[in-house]
Amino acid sequence: MAAEFKHLVLVKFKDDVVVEDVLKGMEKLVSEMDSVKSFVWGQDVESHEMLRQGFTHAFLMTFNSKDDFTAFAAHPNHVEFSTTFSTAIEKAVLLDFPAVTVKPPAA
Amino acid sequence: MAAEFKHLVLVKFKDDVVVEDVLKGMEKLVSEMDSVKSFVWGQDVESHEMLRQGFTHAFLMTFNSKDDFTAFAAHPNHVEFSTTFSTAIEKAVLLDFPAVTVKPPAA
Repeated sequence: MAAEFKHLVLVKFKDDVVVEDVLKGMEKLVSEMDSVKSFVWGQDVESHEMLRQGFTHAFLMTFNSKDDFTAFAAHPNHVEFSTTFSTAIEKAVLLDFPAVTVKPPAA
Repeated sequence: MAAEFKHLVLVKFKDDVVVEDVLKGMEKLVSEMDSVKSFVWGQDVESHEMLRQGFTHAFLMTFNSKDDFTAFAAHPNHVEFSTTFSTAIEKAVLLDFPAVTVKPPAA
């Protein structure tokens, strides 16, 4: 089996942004795009400010392959969402990588 | 079911570090610790330098609960590994969060 491909985004939202609205847009995008195999996100509750460096949210999408990710990234729905998303964030880090699974989730 | 808890670490390693050795140490740690439910990592291959801001690797550990994560973080094996790990990295961002699953992985 080829490695899954992951799209990881860490962000700090601008102060005046309604995060729930952004999340709704992201959930809509993901629900429309079959190429997104799974989607998990979270808001930091635990890490020290020094360690999280201002980042507050992480978004992790998983694809069956790099090709699926590439197609998703170029899709008009994603391009449109990204344009809106980029206006809502103060800073972000993106990492896109083939996943190496050391310990698989239990079935 | 309570939310899974995730421990996410993004790093840029120092230039003279043998990343494989660090990975071996991390795999050993995870294999010894039953509290780590799953562990996936990856090296960025796709994101633009501007977007990844120098970060090269992502490490993602999943726990059944925040309590499991807290116990892991305080465990001597983790504390010892973290001390070594911190000498190997140029910079890092950590986010620890309860996972919100919008689209679950297919069974």
